[in-house]
Amino acid sequence: MVSMSIVEEKVLSEARLALRGIPGQRSPISLGDTGVKIGDGTLVVVAGPCAVEDRVQFFETAAAVKEAGAVGLRGALFKPRTSPYSFQGLGEKGLALLIEARERTGMFVVTEVLSSAEVPLVAEVSDVIQVGSRNMQNFPLLRTLGAVSCPVILKRGLASTIEEWLLAAEYILAGGNQNVILCERGIRTYEKMTRNTLDLGAVALLQKLSSLPVMTDPSHACGRRDLVPDLARAALAAGSDDLMIEVHVHPEDALSDGEQSLNPKEFMVLMQELRQIAAALGRRIATLDRIATLERSETRDPYRV
Amino acid sequence: MVSMSIVEEKVLSEARLALRGIPGQRSPISLGDTGVKIGDGTLVVVAGPCAVEDRVQFFETAAAVKEAGAVGLRGALFKPRTSPYSFQGLGEKGLALLIEARERTGMFVVTEVLSSAEVPLVAEVSDVIQVGSRNMQNFPLLRTLGAVSCPVILKRGLASTIEEWLLAAEYILAGGNQNVILCERGIRTYEKMTRNTLDLGAVALLQKLSSLPVMTDPSHACGRRDLVPDLARAALAAGSDDLMIEVHVHPEDALSDGEQSLNPKEFMVLMQELRQIAAALGRRIATLDRIATLERSETRDPYRV
Amino acid sequence: MVSMSIVEEKVLSEARLALRGIPGQRSPISLGDTGVKIGDGTLVVVAGPCAVEDRVQFFETAAAVKEAGAVGLRGALFKPRTSPYSFQGLGEKGLALLIEARERTGMFVVTEVLSSAEVPLVAEVSDVIQVGSRNMQNFPLLRTLGAVSCPVILKRGLASTIEEWLLAAEYILAGGNQNVILCERGIRTYEKMTRNTLDLGAVALLQKLSSLPVMTDPSHACGRRDLVPDLARAALAAGSDDLMIEVHVHPEDALSDGEQSLNPKEFMVLMQELRQIAAALGRRIATLDRIATLERSETRDPYRV
Amino acid sequence: MVSMSIVEEKVLSEARLALRGIPGQRSPISLGDTGVKIGDGTLVVVAGPCAVEDRVQFFETAAAVKEAGAVGLRGALFKPRTSPYSFQGLGEKGLALLIEARERTGMFVVTEVLSSAEVPLVAEVSDVIQVGSRNMQNFPLLRTLGAVSCPVILKRGLASTIEEWLLAAEYILAGGNQNVILCERGIRTYEKMTRNTLDLGAVALLQKLSSLPVMTDPSHACGRRDLVPDLARAALAAGSDDLMIEVHVHPEDALSDGEQSLNPKEFMVLMQELRQIAAALGRRIATLDRIATLERSETRDPYRV
Repeated sequence: MVSMSIVEEKVLSEARLALRGIPGQRSPISLGDTGVKIGDGTLVVVAGPCAVEDRVQFFETAAAVKEAGAVGLRGALFKPRTSPYSFQGLGEKGLALLIEARERTGMFVVTEVLSSAEVPLVAEVSDVIQVGSRNMQNFPLLRTLGAVSCPVILKRGLASTIEEWLLAAEYILAGGNQNVILCERGIRTYEKMTRNTLDLGAVALLQKLSSLPVMTDPSHACGRRDLVPDLARAALAAGSDDLMIEVHVHPEDALSDGEQSLNPKEFMVLMQELRQIAAALGRRIATLDRIATLERSETRDPYRV
Repeated sequence: MVSMSIVEEKVLSEARLALRGIPGQRSPISLGDTGVKIGDGTLVVVAGPCAVEDRVQFFETAAAVKEAGAVGLRGALFKPRTSPYSFQGLGEKGLALLIEARERTGMFVVTEVLSSAEVPLVAEVSDVIQVGSRNMQNFPLLRTLGAVSCPVILKRGLASTIEEWLLAAEYILAGGNQNVILCERGIRTYEKMTRNTLDLGAVALLQKLSSLPVMTDPSHACGRRDLVPDLARAALAAGSDDLMIEVHVHPEDALSDGEQSLNPKEFMVLMQELRQIAAALGRRIATLDRIATLERSETRDPYRV
Repeated sequence: MVSMSIVEEKVLSEARLALRGIPGQRSPISLGDTGVKIGDGTLVVVAGPCAVEDRVQFFETAAAVKEAGAVGLRGALFKPRTSPYSFQGLGEKGLALLIEARERTGMFVVTEVLSSAEVPLVAEVSDVIQVGSRNMQNFPLLRTLGAVSCPVILKRGLASTIEEWLLAAEYILAGGNQNVILCERGIRTYEKMTRNTLDLGAVALLQKLSSLPVMTDPSHACGRRDLVPDLARAALAAGSDDLMIEVHVHPEDALSDGEQSLNPKEFMVLMQELRQIAAALGRRIATLDRIATLERSETRDPYRV
Repeated sequence: MVSMSIVEEKVLSEARLALRGIPGQRSPISLGDTGVKIGDGTLVVVAGPCAVEDRVQFFETAAAVKEAGAVGLRGALFKPRTSPYSFQGLGEKGLALLIEARERTGMFVVTEVLSSAEVPLVAEVSDVIQVGSRNMQNFPLLRTLGAVSCPVILKRGLASTIEEWLLAAEYILAGGNQNVILCERGIRTYEKMTRNTLDLGAVALLQKLSSLPVMTDPSHACGRRDLVPDLARAALAAGSDDLMIEVHVHPEDALSDGEQSLNPKEFMVLMQELRQIAAALGRRIATLDRIATLERSETRDPYRV
């Protein structure tokens, strides 16, 4: 039984759609035509590079994460960067790579939008749309996403409260799009030795308050490769429905976030650990429907995707 | 002499436009055709309601803040609200009220935009465009604002570092718009008895590092009416170029932020205190060019603006 | 391989004892004469009430946590309380209850000291001494603890950095006491729906940087009973050497921290989950040496300890 | 009129002594036999080095701050240092220097205690005892200070809430010592370009809630010399009863906190600015009773104190 404080009761009264359903039970959301559903009890693993940099990097990484067992492929085309002088992503011209990667691997694909202008095009191409931390309270964008049916991963703001996060989800839900996935990615604190502080208490609490699926991004949470596996295991043990993990075939050459990206071998070791913990928890790692995947990926290619 | 740490040096190397000019000296920015310049040593005071609610509320408040000595009038039409069920502002249809208020009072007007879509229209009407805290890292919006010439007030993000804030300004500056004003409005901390924590150290530091004007919003910083005058005086003493203060003719009836709005009488007392402190600091409060104002406001109206 | 930032290198150079040993390998510490060692790869579970309230409450709770599989018994006699008007603990007169509970259960006992004055007496009686968050930088106390040989649990300060925490440990180590255990218990952030924010990134990082054992207190970290099991499982999965969990036979009647205490049944369920996860990770839960325990607890008592 | 939230009401009910008196009115506290009273409307300025390092440094600094207009002299003998390998202060043997400095200058002296053990000796010698941030919730120490009559400066904890701060004061007040002065010194936030974030909203709020005098330490708040004057002026404008400012004759040689210490010339410029702002606010800077001072300092010495 969940105890309800005054703060919680206030949230409950306003975030009525985000908290609808049977608390503690998930409302599963289908991801692309992979057959994978987030929230059905399986652990859904999404992996891939921070940004899609070029064909070789993206396809090699895609092949590697698929081989290790990921069912979703991430890769940003529109990058929110703190400095205007940093690499800003491939933009629209990278969408073809997303489509091709999906066809070859059978994985569902996830990419980020930065403004309403990109939504129509991205919603048509991508299986899942991601709203980054800096845009969690970009209300016009949230309204636009309320009008499409594509699943939306809503990352928690850099320093957003759980209340604000649920109410941001409420904007999308109130617009008519019920496919909202909450993603904890670490919050800003005074600590300097890690990039952010992963708040698994929020993950656990949301699992009890809401029926929206809750995922965790351990890569941004700590910002350092050596801690990602520890936090990924912890997120699973705390009850995450999904993990999103940055993987790059050559982290040392990445155009962004290389210091927090696992290489394929590290990712494969992690997946094995996750399988064991999931089994101990009575859960299994979501896998791709082999037949559907095979049909899509008849043509082999040099990247062995 | 400013001491330069490693962190500062890194910022200096990236925020090259935001830190251009002679550190410690401001580059004044003209505000509308009022003759008022922010950064010329005077204290520029902007006041008005959180949101434009209706004609009577807005014009009465405008008249009151002008009488007390404000030279700029604030009033949001597009409101970023945490909950989708809260009052979201009058939107475009309120722009006529902004225009009319400016004509009657002679004050320059400031209003907020939430997305690139609103920029063309608002940049045509408003003397100054405000980017709210939640949009400080809305990079597409910052790029759009880099392409207009209208002065932009860039509020600090809820939990943004000074470095991130300067680099957000850099997006606008790099686009070609040199009229950027930084606005400190309190940062998020663990303290619960005030809405945010005003960071006057940031104001003082930016005055030394950058030549962009720096203003302070004490209303959002504390979130409670009884503390606004104390923090407004403090911001002046710390070297703010400008103050932005929420005033409402009937704070208890405000549709948003009433608990942090001064009533006209409280605002008038504060302006008198500010005049005395400014004089002690060798500064004066910016005033409207009377002739220009009279020409604009030939027709009297029932609100005695 | 651990990447070393500038900050880390600075810490490494000052916290030379706290970071001595082979990073990533623990230096096990014996706990009482139970045969249990923290840092030897087993998961050591300490449980018990926030405060020792009376004989019945303490012994019943002790019996329950032992039955569920805990090997250490916690219970504060000297309570640091925010308000001077709150229950401050039984003080010295409760030490006899600690001794008796140890004899009956065979568990090692842990209790907190608030000042140097209590150290001689407590070090003689208790198997482990705890330094609470508010005293992490009570340097005279740390010096005093450097002069005894009793193992010390050093809780992380409410808002202490990992660097400050290691340097606090350094005070004890530099005094000659090598038996220091670091305990993460959540840090203070802006989030209000949980009491603190558990920082498992710190646990994982310290496991890599230091050879001091690292434990986790999920009870204080979240402050709410419904989240304790989730965070306890997560802490194990992140690599904690030890868990400290508040358990009370009647949480609703507890004189302090009742809202974050598990009842015996909830604790037993949690222990079972921990056993399964530990097994999946190739670890086991530390157990008491049965013979030693039996010898101590020849006399049966009404609490069935 | 102060608005009372639920949080405030809870605090008011527990911190009954700290909030006794007429809110908004101070209960003045006499400082030594200087005739100076904190809380009587004057601005009391305390200055001096972070630590008493040696006779020459301390007396030269004392002479300089007195000449500039300070009425209180600070200097730590017992230093709380993050690292055990940093300079820890002169300890008891420095007390004679405090006494001598007071006799020569006529200023009241302030020094810090780290534990109950030092209280009897320090309370006999020093006019005011300081409790540092790291000890704000060192409850045994607070209880000991409740049993003396010496005024106590209670610095706010590194990340303490206003509520916790008032309840810490309550420990001293409940013990019978009514001479408690609250000192804001910046709180810990995520911002890295300043050491801490000065919370003048707390100063302003406490002035309204409590009748305890409230002072501000801008030196620790920002940690950098170039910002200290800005924040000192701001603290005065926000209503501080007192300022505590670190001054060192040779900041570049200081054994601790040199980077945040003003040199005598900078301090003199600041005092002149403070005089002007105080006058604008209808306040004056507290000055020493010349006759009393002369009597004490009949013997001239080479440091021209």
